[in-house]
This record gives sequence, C-alpha cells and structure tokens, in this order.
Amino acid sequence: MQVYFATSNKNKYREAKEIIGNVKRFEFNHIEIRSDSLEEIAIEAVKVAYTKIKKPVFVEDTGLFIKSLNGFPGTYSGWVFKKIGNKGILKLLKGIKKRGAEFRTCIAFNDGTRIKTFFGVCKGKIAVNERGKQGFGYDSIFIPEGYKYTFGESKSLKNKLSHRYNSLLKLSRYFKKNKFWESQHVRDIIKY
Amino acid sequence: MQVYFATSNKNKYREAKEIIGNVKRFEFNHIEIRSDSLEEIAIEAVKVAYTKIKKPVFVEDTGLFIKSLNGFPGTYSGWVFKKIGNKGILKLLKGIKKRGAEFRTCIAFNDGTRIKTFFGVCKGKIAVNERGKQGFGYDSIFIPEGYKYTFGESKSLKNKLSHRYNSLLKLSRYFKKNKFWESQHVRDIIKY
Repeated sequence: MQVYFATSNKNKYREAKEIIGNVKRFEFNHIEIRSDSLEEIAIEAVKVAYTKIKKPVFVEDTGLFIKSLNGFPGTYSGWVFKKIGNKGILKLLKGIKKRGAEFRTCIAFNDGTRIKTFFGVCKGKIAVNERGKQGFGYDSIFIPEGYKYTFGESKSLKNKLSHRYNSLLKLSRYFKKNKFWESQHVRDIIKY
Repeated sequence: MQVYFATSNKNKYREAKEIIGNVKRFEFNHIEIRSDSLEEIAIEAVKVAYTKIKKPVFVEDTGLFIKSLNGFPGTYSGWVFKKIGNKGILKLLKGIKKRGAEFRTCIAFNDGTRIKTFFGVCKGKIAVNERGKQGFGYDSIFIPEGYKYTFGESKSLKNKLSHRYNSLLKLSRYFKKNKFWESQHVRDIIKY
C-alpha cells in the first residue's frame, strides 16, 4: 500500500525519499500545537493529516536541542531559524565552550486504526562557524559526534547518521515486520 | 458584573489589578496555538476560557518584537525568555546599533455573546545592559520611547505607558460605554 509523508517542507520530503524511497508527498500545511514535546506535536498533527488524506500517512517533527541554551531552539527550531538563523545561534553561543547539542526527530504514523511513533536522535555539537551548503536549516552548524564535518558539508554523512534517518529506519522496520510494505529499497536500508 | 482575567501569570494579573482595579483572576493554564498573530492567539484562548468559566472573561497575549531580529521573540516571547532570557537577547543584539523594538498586547474579551479585541503598543528600544528589578520578563532591557529608564527601573512608568496599560484602558472604555461595568477606579483611569 502506498504511504504518504505529510509535510510542507520539500527538503524533508527529499531526504525521506532518498532514505526510504517508496513514499509520496502529501502537501500539508498545518499549524502545530505549542508543546515542548516533539511526540505530542507529531501525534496531534498526524491525527489531522489522516482526517484529510484518509490513507496511511506519517508526519515528522524535528528539533535542535542545544544543552547550554536549555534546549533552545527545540520544538520551535523552524520558527527560530526563520527569525535569527544560524548567525543568531552562533552569536548566542559566542564565548561558550560547552557546545553540545542534539537533533531529535519524532515520526508519527497513522494508518487509520492506530498511531505509532518512532524516534531518532543524533548527538553532536555546534560548530564555531557555518560550514557547507549541502544541507538546510541548521545543518551547516551541526557536527555529529565522532566526525569533523558538519551536515552541511556532507549530505551522505547526514543521510547515514541523522536523527531523521534513524527514525525513518525504525518506520521502515515497522512496515516490514507488519508486512505493511515490501520493497527492495527498504530491505537495503534495513541491512545497512 | 464581575469580570475575570484568565491567566497563569501572576505578574500580569498584578499589573491588571493595579491598572483597572475591579478584576478577579481565573487561574487558566491553556496551551496557546502557534501563530505569528497575537490576536489569533488571544481569540482562540478566550473562546476556551469562556467555555470553562462561563462568566465575562478576558485574556491577553503580549510579545516583544525586535526590528533587527525580524520580530523575534514576538508571539513566542514567554517561551524564549525561559530558554535564553535577557542575556540571550542582549547577546543577539551585540554590536547592532539599530535596537528599535516594541511591546504589543492584544486583549480578547468574551462575554458569551461576542468577542472583542483591544490592542496596546509601546514603542522603544533595547538597552545595552539589564537595568532595574521592578518589572518582570523583558522589562529590564526595554526603554520606552522618550525616556531614559527601562521598565525594570520604574514600575510607575510602565503602568502609565505600557502596551498592557493601553490595551486595558481600551477595555475599560469599552466596559464604560456599554455600561457593562462602573467603578470609581475605572473612571479615574479613563480621565488619566
């Protein structure tokens, strides 16, 4: 059965397609609830998405959580990015040595009978300067743990390691286990 | 008839009481919608508040809009304050000469038959350092136009000039015009 990714963000859809292949986009402009929980936000959104499309659908909510900023910009990452961008984040961290941060994603999938959530985390730190143009959003200031490059410098690195990748992988496994969806592409991903 | 101010913020209630006197607090913890419009947020909130209290009730939503930060922190001012505080705002503005900002308030009043909104604005700029402890939130970094002091340095200044004062004044006038509510205190305010 065809699965849809409900999102207004073409970059997120492109990433999901690169990772799991067999997914269609459902253009979805939804005002999310205010919450510090990605899961709460995703569950509410996927309920609404299903009422509109009436087909198996998932949404995702992602945030960048910076430790020394009490988790800022967190679940408001998209909005904060539009307002102050990477330059603003780097300014807030100027002179701060502890630069630990993590990207977190929560995917919520709704097939009309149940809602399941899948989490992905990618630990790392905030770079001192912006580097690379292969990603979007905060990618050019995020260096994953154990690497020297930012996600903006290496799209292939991001697709292998990222919070979104990890959560999509869990979603793919769930589909496979439940024989919801079989494709060569998904099997490849799972063996990765 | 008794009017209620639905808020979870005791500081806002204290200010409203100092300005309009005859108001009771309705303890109200509501998750606001995400929006860049204070009015949209306030209208949605007061609809919910009325369904709970079933008495004439108003809510207010306030934001600090900094021009050189594209209106940040705007309608997310409360959340941003918890995360990065005044120190964060000052850091974001470090080295920036254009420091223009305004506080905006929207009050939404619901008497069960109609919803009315009232706006208040206070123009000013962001100080270079935090000053004063008489206010709360961003008061200690906000200098109203035509003055040298921050709102944090002078509570009386704030109560005379502020966005919240202006919007509460309009609310009081509306009550008086509609003979909704008469009190010496309100008449005094209106003559101010």
